[in-house]
Amino acid sequence: MTDIQNKSIQTFLDELASKSATPGGGSASALMGAQGAALISMACHLTIGKPQYTEVEAQMQRLLEKAEALRAELTLLIKADIDVFNRLMAAYRLPKDTEAEKSARSEAIQAILKDATEVPLACAQACREVMALSQIAVEKGSVGVVSDAGAAAMSAYSGLKTAALNVYINTGGLKDRDFSTAKLAELAAILNGADESVEAIFQQVKAKL
Amino acid sequence: MTDIQNKSIQTFLDELASKSATPGGGSASALMGAQGAALISMACHLTIGKPQYTEVEAQMQRLLEKAEALRAELTLLIKADIDVFNRLMAAYRLPKDTEAEKSARSEAIQAILKDATEVPLACAQACREVMALSQIAVEKGSVGVVSDAGAAAMSAYSGLKTAALNVYINTGGLKDRDFSTAKLAELAAILNGADESVEAIFQQVKAKL
Repeated sequence: MTDIQNKSIQTFLDELASKSATPGGGSASALMGAQGAALISMACHLTIGKPQYTEVEAQMQRLLEKAEALRAELTLLIKADIDVFNRLMAAYRLPKDTEAEKSARSEAIQAILKDATEVPLACAQACREVMALSQIAVEKGSVGVVSDAGAAAMSAYSGLKTAALNVYINTGGLKDRDFSTAKLAELAAILNGADESVEAIFQQVKAKL
Repeated sequence: MTDIQNKSIQTFLDELASKSATPGGGSASALMGAQGAALISMACHLTIGKPQYTEVEAQMQRLLEKAEALRAELTLLIKADIDVFNRLMAAYRLPKDTEAEKSARSEAIQAILKDATEVPLACAQACREVMALSQIAVEKGSVGVVSDAGAAAMSAYSGLKTAALNVYINTGGLKDRDFSTAKLAELAAILNGADESVEAIFQQVKAKL
C-alpha cells in the first residue's frame, strides 16, 4: 500500500472525505503542522542570501534546520495516526464471547488507546513548536514572505487545536486515570497561551503588510 | 506540468518549503479549506445510514452536497493561487526602460493585483462557508465523528485567516483605492465573528468528547 505522504493531494482529500475512518482528523492535524513547518522553511529560503538580511542569516539557517526537522516529524505523524487508529479498530473487532476474550480485548484496547493518545500529543507538541518558529520568521524574516510566515502560524495553530481534540477523545476512553490525567496536563501546558499567540502573530503580520 | 492537486503530499510539502515563491501561503490556505470540507463530507458519510440518525439523514445529505461543492471549489483555488502569483511575477519582470514600457508594466501589475485579491477573497468566503457547515456537522452529525467535524472547523478557520493575510498583501499594492476599499469591506464581513465561532465550535466538540 502506498504510504499516505506519497499519495496525491486529490487522493488524500478523496480518502479524507470518504466513508473510511482513516485518514481522519488526526492525519489532517499532522498535515496542517507539516504545512506550517514547510512555510517557515520557505520564508527562511527566501530570506537567506538577501543582502538586507545578512545580520539574521545564521539565525535563519538554524530556523530552517529546526523547521525541516519538525516537518519530517509531522509528515511521519500523518501516517502514524492512521496506523494507530487502524490498530484500535482491529482491537475493537476482537472476539468477546468468553470472559477471557473480553478481558484480552479490553486490555488490547486500553494499551492502544495510550498510543492513540501519544500520537496526537506528539503532534500537538510539534505544532506548538512550529508556532514558536513562525513567530521568529515573522519578526526576523524577509518582509516579502511575512504573509507566508503568518500562514505557517495559522496552519500550525489549527493542527495544534485539532490534535488537542484527538487527545481528548482518546483519553476519554482510558481506564488508567493517572495516565490520562498526566497526558491532559501535558496537553494543557502545550495549549497554554496558544490562542493569544496566534492572534498576536496575525496582528503582527497584518501590521507589516 | 502536473497540476498541483495531482502531486503527492510529499512533493507539495517539498515545493512549499522550497525557495520557489509558488506554492506559498495562498495555496496552503486553499488546501486547509479543502481539507476542512473533506472532513465534513467524512462526518456526513459516517452519519448517513446509521439508525440513530435517520431523523437528520436528509439534512446530512444536503450538508454532504454543499461540502463536496466547496471542496471542489477550494481544490481549484490551490492551483488558482499559483497561477495568479506566477502572472504577477511575470508582470513585475516586464521591461521598464521607456515611459511607455513603465506605464504598460504598471497597468499589467495593477490588473493582475485585482485578480490576486479576488482569488484569496473567494478562498476566504469558501472557508467561512465550510466553518458554517462544520457547525451543523458538530451539532447534528454522529457523535462518533464529532472530533472530525471539529477538525473541519479548525482547518477551515486557518484557511480563512491565511486567505485574509493574502487579501491584505495584495490590496496593499493596489492604486485603485475604491476597489481595494470595497474588497476589504467584503473581507471584513466574511471575517466578522469567525474567531468567536471557531472557539465556540471547539468548546462544543470538547464537551461532546
